[in-house]
Amino acid sequence: MHHAASASPTLDDVLDAAARIAPHAHATPVLRSRAIDAMAGCTLHFKAEHLQRTGAFKFRGACSTVWSLSDAEAARGVVTHSSGNHGAALALAAAGRGIACHVVTPTDAVPAKLAAIAGYGAALHRSEPTLAAREAACTALQRRSGATLVHPYRDPRVMAGQGTAALELIGAAGPLDAVVVPVGGGGLAAGTAIALGGLAPGTRLVLAEPAGADDAARSLRTGVRVEAQTPDTVCDGLRTLLGAPNFEILQRAGAETIVVDDAATLAAMRLIWQRMKQLVEPSSAVALAAVLAAPERFAGLRVGVILSGGNADVPALVRGGHWP
Amino acid sequence: MHHAASASPTLDDVLDAAARIAPHAHATPVLRSRAIDAMAGCTLHFKAEHLQRTGAFKFRGACSTVWSLSDAEAARGVVTHSSGNHGAALALAAAGRGIACHVVTPTDAVPAKLAAIAGYGAALHRSEPTLAAREAACTALQRRSGATLVHPYRDPRVMAGQGTAALELIGAAGPLDAVVVPVGGGGLAAGTAIALGGLAPGTRLVLAEPAGADDAARSLRTGVRVEAQTPDTVCDGLRTLLGAPNFEILQRAGAETIVVDDAATLAAMRLIWQRMKQLVEPSSAVALAAVLAAPERFAGLRVGVILSGGNADVPALVRGGHWP
Repeated sequence: MHHAASASPTLDDVLDAAARIAPHAHATPVLRSRAIDAMAGCTLHFKAEHLQRTGAFKFRGACSTVWSLSDAEAARGVVTHSSGNHGAALALAAAGRGIACHVVTPTDAVPAKLAAIAGYGAALHRSEPTLAAREAACTALQRRSGATLVHPYRDPRVMAGQGTAALELIGAAGPLDAVVVPVGGGGLAAGTAIALGGLAPGTRLVLAEPAGADDAARSLRTGVRVEAQTPDTVCDGLRTLLGAPNFEILQRAGAETIVVDDAATLAAMRLIWQRMKQLVEPSSAVALAAVLAAPERFAGLRVGVILSGGNADVPALVRGGHWP
Repeated sequence: MHHAASASPTLDDVLDAAARIAPHAHATPVLRSRAIDAMAGCTLHFKAEHLQRTGAFKFRGACSTVWSLSDAEAARGVVTHSSGNHGAALALAAAGRGIACHVVTPTDAVPAKLAAIAGYGAALHRSEPTLAAREAACTALQRRSGATLVHPYRDPRVMAGQGTAALELIGAAGPLDAVVVPVGGGGLAAGTAIALGGLAPGTRLVLAEPAGADDAARSLRTGVRVEAQTPDTVCDGLRTLLGAPNFEILQRAGAETIVVDDAATLAAMRLIWQRMKQLVEPSSAVALAAVLAAPERFAGLRVGVILSGGNADVPALVRGGHWP
């Protein structure tokens, strides 16, 4: 049975993804900090996805999807319109299989990120920075080349790939009372929901979200998915709206949410830098910030925290006045 | 036989130290980076001492020395005059044995570092910032309390403790052609020389030193120890003059030296931050900078690099204009 195209992936899809990415992705370590445990009042198990290839969990979903394609599909290449961590992840995954990768990039994208994507061998295609223009450019590229679209978070194959991080976390840390993940588009969140639902149904799933892009929290509270917002947060990886299939999976999973402001996220980021010596980006630190903001919800528990990525622009963070 | 007081420690002393610190110190991981290997043209095995307790290798020597004391000696406490990583390390080591720790601190010390030392429970004693004033204050404290002086790098017990990092590195990485360590006072360098000399005599010992404090390189070149310099380097852990016993050990070991300027060290530091997501301090990065500055000396080899510490003042480094 071929699960890849099913709307809502299952634990089997996550297990298949784990087998598929094993030769290519890192099994990242699970880190501990007694100093931060003491501050949080619980036992924290940090899944170090900032040490994943390309510096973010995104490589899991991209790699799993690229290697799930038939030889005929693969020969026509892959395409996406993310100019962030997913673009770089897809570029490296495609290079690993020796196939073409097209990335539609907005004209206002960060040059350093474009250089990284091009450095992995992808072809860049410039478009106007609106979502409509980028999706139209993607569609045109798909028609012309026959390349497979790999959406950064709505694609069920991508979700299943992201779920492998939670799989490894539980494998290394043992049973957990809760797992906290950052939520943006919801690829990691949905993948984690699927992995936990199948493997550890007693483990609570907690979504950490910046106050300046809190559509997931509002959507799950009201039961109606928020379809527009103007994000305002330092967490550049979490400015995306929660995807429709992601929303459904998280709703079914009974995911809890904790919303934190950027000051709390940046304080948590500095804590991880100073105490753990791990260079994580703000979009990662939001998960620890959520635990520290609501200690009564984690008191004495065994808690997994997925550090989602480490592609931080250090001088911009310091010069932006984000340091006391 | 009691080795602790011998002027030049042996491999047995390092092995004793390893057994002594095992219940207290972290066996830090050895990290790899295929991106940096490709740039360096050799295989690099990074011993992650920035992940050691207190964020630096210094805890090894301090801990080993504290636990080498007799109960009667220990009851009278320990004293030192380092306000940097060694002061924090000795404070935590003393706290672990439940004994008093006195740290003589210069009036111009960095408040954050003093707070860290006090946070581990040590008593701070202020003195004028000259070496003579600090040593006099130490001697007075010793007389009054009977506390044992634990010198940051000249003490053979401390050297033996620092040598345990190389022991673990070789244990984890296997045979190495060379090991590169930063050199300041020479505690880590001498300890590494002793460990390698006994365990892996074919492994070259390479000392990495900042150009603005290159007394070790000049001393080893001329055979006469430099006894005064005005250090000018961003590597705050390496401004110290090489100690006399340390010089003798390194001379006997035939240690090579590579001198690098601060710009190269800071570029190497940024590389470790960006590629490895590890927050190391400049005094650590000097070792990678040395490899990148002299690639012909390492081409194709298996090279160990000791990342000595991670107590970096990130905003000061960015604001100091040390970022492109």
